[in-house]
Amino acid sequence: MDAVWNAIRALSIRGAPAIGVAGAYGVVLGVQATRDRPVAAFLDHLHKVADRFRACRPTAVNLPASADRMEAVARGSGADSAEILLSLLLLEARKIHEEEQAACKAMARHGAKLIENGHGVLTHCNTGGLATAGKGTALGVVIEAHEQGKRIHVYADETRPLLQGARLTVLELMRAGVDVTLICDSAAARVMHEGRVNAVLVGADRIAANGDTANKIGTQGLALAAHAHDIPFYVVAPTSTIDPDLESGQGIPIEVRAPEEVTVLPGTGSGKNGIRTAPEGAQVYNPAFDVTPWRYIRAIVTEKGVLQPPFEDSICGVMRARHEEAT
Amino acid sequence: MDAVWNAIRALSIRGAPAIGVAGAYGVVLGVQATRDRPVAAFLDHLHKVADRFRACRPTAVNLPASADRMEAVARGSGADSAEILLSLLLLEARKIHEEEQAACKAMARHGAKLIENGHGVLTHCNTGGLATAGKGTALGVVIEAHEQGKRIHVYADETRPLLQGARLTVLELMRAGVDVTLICDSAAARVMHEGRVNAVLVGADRIAANGDTANKIGTQGLALAAHAHDIPFYVVAPTSTIDPDLESGQGIPIEVRAPEEVTVLPGTGSGKNGIRTAPEGAQVYNPAFDVTPWRYIRAIVTEKGVLQPPFEDSICGVMRARHEEAT
Repeated sequence: MDAVWNAIRALSIRGAPAIGVAGAYGVVLGVQATRDRPVAAFLDHLHKVADRFRACRPTAVNLPASADRMEAVARGSGADSAEILLSLLLLEARKIHEEEQAACKAMARHGAKLIENGHGVLTHCNTGGLATAGKGTALGVVIEAHEQGKRIHVYADETRPLLQGARLTVLELMRAGVDVTLICDSAAARVMHEGRVNAVLVGADRIAANGDTANKIGTQGLALAAHAHDIPFYVVAPTSTIDPDLESGQGIPIEVRAPEEVTVLPGTGSGKNGIRTAPEGAQVYNPAFDVTPWRYIRAIVTEKGVLQPPFEDSICGVMRARHEEAT
Repeated sequence: MDAVWNAIRALSIRGAPAIGVAGAYGVVLGVQATRDRPVAAFLDHLHKVADRFRACRPTAVNLPASADRMEAVARGSGADSAEILLSLLLLEARKIHEEEQAACKAMARHGAKLIENGHGVLTHCNTGGLATAGKGTALGVVIEAHEQGKRIHVYADETRPLLQGARLTVLELMRAGVDVTLICDSAAARVMHEGRVNAVLVGADRIAANGDTANKIGTQGLALAAHAHDIPFYVVAPTSTIDPDLESGQGIPIEVRAPEEVTVLPGTGSGKNGIRTAPEGAQVYNPAFDVTPWRYIRAIVTEKGVLQPPFEDSICGVMRARHEEAT
């Protein structure tokens, strides 16, 4: 369990859907050793393990939501042995995994309709197979459109400080055979100004009931630039990323990460030292996410379909349907 | 001369005012060896040298404007020996240098009135003593306000790809005793959203007659974010950066620089290798500047005073005054 928890904390596993799935399996690993204890003791321990995962990273809702769901399944089962509870938890983790895989496929299908042949698409951070349990959210849409034979050119923001765009998105798209050009985050507005972009596609870490969307730092600025250039800005995320209990984005906790992510670029390979990019002693503010107000979002692509504004209504509808399916 | 030219090209000397001054001295160095030639041959050679500097970097107007001015002084002097022409050119280079120093002082004085005690100020790239011939443009304003006893907190964008903000601005402000916090470029909109910023101050590389302003890549996105948050966005630049012959920013040539600036972070010190930040073979688009439309600029701070929109009128007025002074 510690290995999974640490991997999520250190971003070895990252991306809202991926950490939701990993967290569910992590809960299973965390309670395995108590399979021979009485049910009450097992449930107590399960609660502590779930709590640890809920607190691992604050912004993406998928992680606490997964932990909640795992705990609820165990508590609601009425099973009379820890062994059975453990089996139920493993089944539930697999179910979360499969749901996220299926959601990726469905989002890709719905989202690809928004992308036309010849389109330039700008994206931020990494939202592909390395961030999800399937082919991806925003990147899944791009790859699906490409596989449908549409000619697409992607502009990938490098995504400082951790360069998920440069390191992961460019790699995934090159491997998929999609035309991709890497740009600095700060070049996005210029690239839009030059008429190279027909749509902006991003993922999400948490979506409030009104559509306000937390995503990787830089997303809000992209949305403002897209708005100024009248370019549609789409969020692609499974309904598991929606947090209907939050009225607006104001309530979303924003993770602030270590200064060294900004001031030191880690070396790769053995014996390679990192490179400092700022003077010793420099103060740094490193919020890992920002919140894009709903009014800058043209639509939210989910596995249940494409949600249109006003999002209060469309999100409420889709969450009700999801709830009814589950019960 | 080659040393100066190469230093400008490689950005060892950078910042629009600084390269204007360096270019003027570079022209002097370039024609020194022909001081014993006939006047006509000297002027021919001067034209070639000036042309080299005009072509060294395209976006900042200060460099070609300096070269033009040096050539005009020589041609208009009527001097009958190359030796005298050379002396006149050196005097003119010193005059450009002194004018830029004086302009920094005057801009700082005018601009500091816009900054209040307790203000948060966001800036981009480097616009201090390392980019100008004096205390700086935008940074000169900040340091002047600080020296006047105003408590100011500066948020410095790191400014990818070459990190002038992280490496130079943070250093200059720390040395000047100004509170400064380094942020990723993509965090600027979030920092505004959190209410930390009362004004955005940037420099300029070329300002068209309508106020459209070319500056370091990322400036346009900042201006859009400032606009969305109703935060005043100020350009601080000497009138030498204004190009009254250009009707709008559309005519400003945008320098596109090497992909390696984005994909490799150079090592520092001996024996330290650079670190690749993107897969081998990745396509890169690396425009070094963008153009901020005049309507997002609250005011332009020059050495002649603070210009207000509509900038067609205020720029026209200040350039006429400048022209009358010069003749």
